[in-house]
Amino acid sequence: MGNSYREAGVDLDAAERAKERLKSLVASTRDENTLSELGLFGGLYAVPGDVENPILVSSADGVGTKLKVAFMAGRHDTVGRDLVNHCVNDILVQGARPLFFLDYLATGAMDESVVTSVVTGVALACKENGCALLGGETAQMPDFYADDEYDLAGFIVGAVSRSKVLDGSRVGAGDVLIGLGSSGLHTNGYTLARKIVFEQMGLRADDEMPELERPVGDVLLDVHRSYLNVLWPLLQEERIHALAHVTGGGIPGNLPRVLPLGLGAVVDRGSWTPGPLFRLLQRAGGVDRDEMYRVFNMGAGMILVVAKDQVDPVLQDLRAAGEAPWVMGEVEQGKGVRYGD
Amino acid sequence: MGNSYREAGVDLDAAERAKERLKSLVASTRDENTLSELGLFGGLYAVPGDVENPILVSSADGVGTKLKVAFMAGRHDTVGRDLVNHCVNDILVQGARPLFFLDYLATGAMDESVVTSVVTGVALACKENGCALLGGETAQMPDFYADDEYDLAGFIVGAVSRSKVLDGSRVGAGDVLIGLGSSGLHTNGYTLARKIVFEQMGLRADDEMPELERPVGDVLLDVHRSYLNVLWPLLQEERIHALAHVTGGGIPGNLPRVLPLGLGAVVDRGSWTPGPLFRLLQRAGGVDRDEMYRVFNMGAGMILVVAKDQVDPVLQDLRAAGEAPWVMGEVEQGKGVRYGD
Repeated sequence: MGNSYREAGVDLDAAERAKERLKSLVASTRDENTLSELGLFGGLYAVPGDVENPILVSSADGVGTKLKVAFMAGRHDTVGRDLVNHCVNDILVQGARPLFFLDYLATGAMDESVVTSVVTGVALACKENGCALLGGETAQMPDFYADDEYDLAGFIVGAVSRSKVLDGSRVGAGDVLIGLGSSGLHTNGYTLARKIVFEQMGLRADDEMPELERPVGDVLLDVHRSYLNVLWPLLQEERIHALAHVTGGGIPGNLPRVLPLGLGAVVDRGSWTPGPLFRLLQRAGGVDRDEMYRVFNMGAGMILVVAKDQVDPVLQDLRAAGEAPWVMGEVEQGKGVRYGD
Repeated sequence: MGNSYREAGVDLDAAERAKERLKSLVASTRDENTLSELGLFGGLYAVPGDVENPILVSSADGVGTKLKVAFMAGRHDTVGRDLVNHCVNDILVQGARPLFFLDYLATGAMDESVVTSVVTGVALACKENGCALLGGETAQMPDFYADDEYDLAGFIVGAVSRSKVLDGSRVGAGDVLIGLGSSGLHTNGYTLARKIVFEQMGLRADDEMPELERPVGDVLLDVHRSYLNVLWPLLQEERIHALAHVTGGGIPGNLPRVLPLGLGAVVDRGSWTPGPLFRLLQRAGGVDRDEMYRVFNMGAGMILVVAKDQVDPVLQDLRAAGEAPWVMGEVEQGKGVRYGD
């Protein structure tokens, strides 16, 4: 009685079939610089000719335990969008537009429909962000992941002209902070949010979320939005001094990352009202206010740093693009973030 | 009694401390094109000026359940090297040399010494392969991963001049296959290997492996080697028609990926003897011979496809570089791989 890889829990044929199903999805994201099809060892992408003196900007990210909510809700088409948009925002804050993306999907069993759902989300968001899905790895790791669980990570490469890199050097004291709204928790704080919602409030994914009148699963799976299309025109015109993507660590953990040495920021938390989900989590979980701002984005997903004389025109352009931006503070001598309230 | 992120299992301070410790490791891999330090949202890397008409080649990979062996052996400094070398080989087969690398490390608890060990391996291999460690993500996902477990994925970007891309178009019938030795199981077949070694043979990581006279953990953690330094001179001189990295799927799963439509290969399995580890696994596990060649590299980690008149000089150069290459078959009309024995 012999052993085979399949009996050991790895189904190479299912992996092949899933790969075939993914090919057309991936093909839909190809652009004129994509030189390879899925299936090669490495994906090929030509450095675009229209970026003068190109600098590559790259970032790796995961979805974190937001995945657990997807498992509970049995919904797998949103986490890929979270991942791509998160990565797009992370290179956008250095001034780069995305070129291509690769994903890493590790799972216990190779459920073709789940894999296809996840990668559909990835491919869709790639398309929305003008980014080629150049390749990826789908790993079967039985006895590592539960059969119906998976982890998902992504890698993005973008490009920016050397003269347009945002590296903090444009920022000065007196520059103004403009906030842009988030679309929910994005991909941060889920370990705490899940503890509050599922353990302490005792809710289930298909229950209605109090005050929000939407199912808990839907609320917690709201897709991490991309700021590329809204901010790209402003970046092209070099009207932004810096951008901070509010991810793990919240505003105090992320805003200082894009300020030069010797500068900090004052943030007026009274300048906006975090949405009902944040208030609910704070109250139900009895979470300290400062801890809330360290764990969650609190409704501010992206922060722009602009010159004082650019505030009004930038606000106007953002409003014309459908945003509801607000002035949330300013850059000052010092370090880190202090709250003005 | 309030909630905090730390009580929920996420230790942002430990993450910060680990990041600080990693900075110097990462710094040791910087090169003249690395424009950013760790801590930015995206890593910055200039497209090298010495690659004419540059094509970017990118790949994502994981270590698979070889990680389980690392957990059992309590040894965390090798898996990062496996990962980097695997990725380096994957882009090498398209003709590219590595530019930069990013890692994704997801763990249950943030054990700083384990994280540092893993990333030390990553950084060391990056250095060995002339590749900048440009960034990465370390994710704390309690109740997703066990406290002492983690998953590790990597992502590489390399470059090749458009005229030197290996895309199969150089390969013709009659071309000869040259095998290069592997350094053990590399990163494939571990689910089956672990089942045979730990379940069926009942061995533990610190037991001695029969016939090999080395600890089981050491044997199974032998580092996936990089073929970059040995093959780069031959690639520069355009003496190789194609390269196949023998990973998951073995020779029949990987060699056809680099052959053009209408061509297959005949492989003579009698032309080399797989090392004692493969024979042991086959015998102890009662694994069918063809299944062995589909799951494991069987001692052939990289296959070169060269013109007939290049065989002798290439063999000679490889031997001079310290390799023990052998002629293992040839390209023929048809498709896929058939065995000549």
